[in-house]
Amino acid sequence: MSFGGNSSALVPAAELALRRRNLQKSMQAAGLEAAVIIQNADLYYFSGTLQSGLLYIPSQGDPVYLVRRDLQRARRESALPQIMPFGSFRDLPGILADCGLPHADRIGLELDVLPVAHYRRLCAVLGTPKVDDLTPLIRELRAIKSTWELNHMRAAARQLDESWCLALQMAEEGMRDLDLVVALEGLARRRGHPGYARMRAFNGEIAMGTVLVGADGAVPAFRNTPLGGAGLHPSIGFGASGRRMTRGEAVTVDLVGFSAGYLADQTRTFGVGHLSGSLRRAYDAMRQVQDLLMRSARPGVSWGQLYDDCRMLAEDLGYGPFFMGQEGSQVSFIGHGIGLEIDEYPFIARGLHQQVLKQNMTFAFEPKAVFRGQGAVGIENTFVVTPDGLESLTFSDETLHIV
Amino acid sequence: MSFGGNSSALVPAAELALRRRNLQKSMQAAGLEAAVIIQNADLYYFSGTLQSGLLYIPSQGDPVYLVRRDLQRARRESALPQIMPFGSFRDLPGILADCGLPHADRIGLELDVLPVAHYRRLCAVLGTPKVDDLTPLIRELRAIKSTWELNHMRAAARQLDESWCLALQMAEEGMRDLDLVVALEGLARRRGHPGYARMRAFNGEIAMGTVLVGADGAVPAFRNTPLGGAGLHPSIGFGASGRRMTRGEAVTVDLVGFSAGYLADQTRTFGVGHLSGSLRRAYDAMRQVQDLLMRSARPGVSWGQLYDDCRMLAEDLGYGPFFMGQEGSQVSFIGHGIGLEIDEYPFIARGLHQQVLKQNMTFAFEPKAVFRGQGAVGIENTFVVTPDGLESLTFSDETLHIV
Repeated sequence: MSFGGNSSALVPAAELALRRRNLQKSMQAAGLEAAVIIQNADLYYFSGTLQSGLLYIPSQGDPVYLVRRDLQRARRESALPQIMPFGSFRDLPGILADCGLPHADRIGLELDVLPVAHYRRLCAVLGTPKVDDLTPLIRELRAIKSTWELNHMRAAARQLDESWCLALQMAEEGMRDLDLVVALEGLARRRGHPGYARMRAFNGEIAMGTVLVGADGAVPAFRNTPLGGAGLHPSIGFGASGRRMTRGEAVTVDLVGFSAGYLADQTRTFGVGHLSGSLRRAYDAMRQVQDLLMRSARPGVSWGQLYDDCRMLAEDLGYGPFFMGQEGSQVSFIGHGIGLEIDEYPFIARGLHQQVLKQNMTFAFEPKAVFRGQGAVGIENTFVVTPDGLESLTFSDETLHIV
Repeated sequence: MSFGGNSSALVPAAELALRRRNLQKSMQAAGLEAAVIIQNADLYYFSGTLQSGLLYIPSQGDPVYLVRRDLQRARRESALPQIMPFGSFRDLPGILADCGLPHADRIGLELDVLPVAHYRRLCAVLGTPKVDDLTPLIRELRAIKSTWELNHMRAAARQLDESWCLALQMAEEGMRDLDLVVALEGLARRRGHPGYARMRAFNGEIAMGTVLVGADGAVPAFRNTPLGGAGLHPSIGFGASGRRMTRGEAVTVDLVGFSAGYLADQTRTFGVGHLSGSLRRAYDAMRQVQDLLMRSARPGVSWGQLYDDCRMLAEDLGYGPFFMGQEGSQVSFIGHGIGLEIDEYPFIARGLHQQVLKQNMTFAFEPKAVFRGQGAVGIENTFVVTPDGLESLTFSDETLHIV
């Protein structure tokens, strides 16, 4: 396997140990005696691999990773000390007893993603314990990135810059949105992108990103994103529609990079031939919103306050009805946490005044102006919170290019 | 939008009405007073679009499609008669009362996919009704395809044939698995594939398919599939690894086509330069297993009996330890239903002796022989059950090619 000889590609044992200890601290504070982790992104975060089964984390001591398939891969890819074979949920109590783990009366499960059928089977075999939602604890932990994680997000950002450079090189009047996005996907795939990115929300579908041309940029979709796109068919419902780039149209390129599971999210806009003064002014306004974010954001500032301030600026600049979606289809956030999933903490969103930025949180911030029948312009970068403010992990040229 | 002028691309009103009436019959037989449908594939099946919200189907009369976003798209894309705006779960009882729908004491929900958190909120607003699992009813219904659905699966099969022809044209000694799969993905994307396929199982990740070279074909992955692949990194864990094609190696090309949400699944194998007699014999044996299936399968035959008979033939031919995965990592199925999702009913799997094939069921059948350290050979086609037997929807040349 390509990573076989490159042990730096594996999640380091020290990272895993720190993550587990931090979760155990939260579990102890919340009165949880054990956590059972099943979902792919969470499993990878705490084990370093995706091998199917479950990870049982007691509130103290080593976790037990029970692997259905593939056990040998789990042992090779994960630095966890206890990795054991596993047949079905029914075997769970016996294995835990063999490991000397006491019965837990109060456990945490990933209730936002765990299907009801799994939940019922799991509760039955565990002797119907009291169940709390483990997800907020995991999300708070995962929101704060280590240097190792940030380095992978920087690698994902380099992938995005290559894609953006290729977009500027290839795009021309008459080209279909689909042909450009397929070329960008191919480049990213050859650089290690798996072809999809993980999203936590139920029914989340995002693929590798979107290229939206002209009026398509203003077509809302079922996804909770400012830009949707018509898509090729109602069974897809977002993204490219086969539309050709026409002189005077704005084109948005919104892509997700991937490195070792970690994502970076970036949007850039270009014009075909020329862009009207009104679209140029809208783009400048979105950059002003980004500038305000960069001046205001630092540890301790609330997510909701940042949202209110940035939204207010967009309104003051005259873009209230066009901000973050076409009129009537606007989303109530400007930024979203990002890491292993594209919808992590923090959310720079309406009403979240109790939660504050912390050092080493990472989020994508995407002020976008959307005009019905005309299209969208905007920008998006992925930031990390530093002691004094923000550093942008994504770094592609922000000039409003004309191709 | 590209499909705007092409109303034949939309799910016809008569299809939607028939699906709804069939579900209502099952609901009445099961004593359910209402069904609430949320998951994307189910929502598309019963509404013709993916717009977010929920579809409320009483046991008699018209359903109500409550749409969070985007309402205008839902009204344009769905032929359902009642489509209404929707803010949050809290609004549900009021809207249902306004529609003249009585309180339901016993409802069906998609318990295999619905997250616990959604379930709890939904039950609370609906006055804690008795909840049954709606999924078996939906799966039984969705397993039987209409002519309209089969036509889309045929279109997906044509996409697969184009991809296979391109694979044979491009592949050569020294080429990386990744470069071949990316080229095939690009072709499919330009033909309308969204870049992903839907899988119902929790934690399912499949992308567009895999190209596995030599020994990589025998590397098991976390996915419940006979072929896994090393993948580029433990955070992906399946598919291409960057391995180059070497003379004498077998290469499997396992791809999923897509048309209007409907999938077709096909695997073909080629050799690089030449293939050893033992790999050729194994490939022939897998075709013999397919031949047995095609002779045995017809309405009324049980899924488990087909599995047993085909598995027994593989054993008799000497491939028992190598059938459907490398020794120790074998999966317990040979075929899987396919339609809007890649893991539908029927499953040609161990132990399923109570469920039988019915006319117009569609499934992929994929006998594969897997040799540790050496690789995999095999074949896969997508079939529809006819009154007398099977018809293959996929049609690419089954010759064991050498490139």
